[in-house]
Amino acid sequence: MDQTSSNHQTEFDIIRSYFKDLTHQKGVEKGIGDDAALVKFSSEHNNHLVVATDTLIGGVHFPNTAGAFDIAQRAMCVNLSDLAAMGAVPRWFTLGLSLPTNLARSEWLGQFSAGLKIIADQYDCALIGGDTTRGPLSVNITMLGEVPLQEAMCRDGASIGDIVYVTGFLGDGAAALKNELEKPQPSDVFRKSERLFNRFYRPTPRIKEGLEIRSIATACIDISDGLVADLEHLCRSSNTSANVSIENLPIHPEVKKHHPEQYSDFALFGGDDYELCFTVPESKNLVMGELIKSRSVNAVPIGKIIKSNGSGSRVLLNGRVCNSKKTGFKHFE
Amino acid sequence: MDQTSSNHQTEFDIIRSYFKDLTHQKGVEKGIGDDAALVKFSSEHNNHLVVATDTLIGGVHFPNTAGAFDIAQRAMCVNLSDLAAMGAVPRWFTLGLSLPTNLARSEWLGQFSAGLKIIADQYDCALIGGDTTRGPLSVNITMLGEVPLQEAMCRDGASIGDIVYVTGFLGDGAAALKNELEKPQPSDVFRKSERLFNRFYRPTPRIKEGLEIRSIATACIDISDGLVADLEHLCRSSNTSANVSIENLPIHPEVKKHHPEQYSDFALFGGDDYELCFTVPESKNLVMGELIKSRSVNAVPIGKIIKSNGSGSRVLLNGRVCNSKKTGFKHFE
Repeated sequence: MDQTSSNHQTEFDIIRSYFKDLTHQKGVEKGIGDDAALVKFSSEHNNHLVVATDTLIGGVHFPNTAGAFDIAQRAMCVNLSDLAAMGAVPRWFTLGLSLPTNLARSEWLGQFSAGLKIIADQYDCALIGGDTTRGPLSVNITMLGEVPLQEAMCRDGASIGDIVYVTGFLGDGAAALKNELEKPQPSDVFRKSERLFNRFYRPTPRIKEGLEIRSIATACIDISDGLVADLEHLCRSSNTSANVSIENLPIHPEVKKHHPEQYSDFALFGGDDYELCFTVPESKNLVMGELIKSRSVNAVPIGKIIKSNGSGSRVLLNGRVCNSKKTGFKHFE
Repeated sequence: MDQTSSNHQTEFDIIRSYFKDLTHQKGVEKGIGDDAALVKFSSEHNNHLVVATDTLIGGVHFPNTAGAFDIAQRAMCVNLSDLAAMGAVPRWFTLGLSLPTNLARSEWLGQFSAGLKIIADQYDCALIGGDTTRGPLSVNITMLGEVPLQEAMCRDGASIGDIVYVTGFLGDGAAALKNELEKPQPSDVFRKSERLFNRFYRPTPRIKEGLEIRSIATACIDISDGLVADLEHLCRSSNTSANVSIENLPIHPEVKKHHPEQYSDFALFGGDDYELCFTVPESKNLVMGELIKSRSVNAVPIGKIIKSNGSGSRVLLNGRVCNSKKTGFKHFE
């Protein structure tokens, strides 16, 4: 088995036919078509390689009825979001595609490749390795990027007193999921909000924002499991707790209007928002304010990093202990 | 979804419990446990990053009855083999593991992790990203390594007159598969040759050999689809053809003895050998001979690179056109 096939010439042809024009980018000496890809890493001193990997499975991470174009875009966006959270610039990615026989047709592959290409072009990253196998629908992407070590945003840098920010809107992911799960006629209902549909399949990876804040933020995480769960991860890594002001959560008017009883829960416990949650020290809060005012970064402060008491890292809501087991995550089965 | 989980705390725990001691290696600033891994790429001028990715699916690339330890080792070895073919030094890898509910138990995971660790330690590479999902059994590994650009062995460098070499023995993969496919009682029969069983699940990645030959060889490929098919890939990339002397193929006495009618076909068309096939120019053939004599590289010359005629790249056997459609590959279904 090599880089481009799994013992089947036909699979080599799949990569060659559908994905070849995704492989050109500066720094790629050898893309698809050899045993491995060969890329030129930045010669800038102290740049580090950043690697994130994620597998999306049909019926688990997206509905089995989802289109190839949408699946490809979601797979790219959630992986890019991990790089954004590190403050990294994306460069290259590999694709592991498992396809049932009934989908291994040119229509599906053409749409998948088109979806991939749009995001790859937009974020200037090149496909450098592909592997297609016959099997249940799943998409694995490993995304590679670069960041100067001293500017990489990790989860463990938050200090007591830091201000907690989030980008964009929270709760859209959960609202989109709810639409989909309550479908009488799948695609129609899900598409009743074009905005939510797009937020689910094409959550904007906050790469630009990551670059803007990386010299200011002390810690950062992307919100995939829900704000409370992910902020708790950040707090645990930093040995702190956090207090969030519920009234400050950025929630889109559409979600407030259609889910008047649930929008706070969506924003706090729903997953799949792919916004950044990051911490800024008091000393840099003015600079952060300038970035927001100049519209370089769309973010709002939602709380503060506080000292953990004896019971470990916690996310308080308006000063009160919350039940962090609550979660908005649902499978599509 | 982040680097360490797919929306489930339990899956974060899987990575943490079973794979944490695979993550330590020089150059790893952040391994598992953040949105992405952060690694220090070699500062040696002109070193390039090498990336190979491969997915192994239960029932396709290994029998569904295979043990977790063996599956893990095979997944590592076939990916390392791709790096060997480039002349690269392995450094880091990511793991995408999809597991059916009945296997997501500590016994299976413990054995899988133990298998992975042995190979990772042996080849000095660190696990830097993990993703576990519920689903049909599949293992995706993306392997990262380094090679100086001018020494990387690609498929397109062979010239007319170059001598074709292969490492180790050919046909073992096909013989092992045949044992497995003709099983009356699966594991017993497959294990009737411990050597073949190990060659299938732990094909030695020729990393050491790759490093020895990389300044001498003009082109290289690893044999996964079978000698003829892979040498044809090399020839196509190099715009040449090749002529192989069947009597020079290195075949283990055990395979000759048990498959007197088929051993040549196994060596020529059987897959899964994971030996290196490479080309050496006449001018460097003496140096190559020295490497073999000093036992630095276990390899034999099996043929020559020749001019392609009008019908494109071909692999001739003893000067005759062969039917390259013949293949030893079988699925485990």
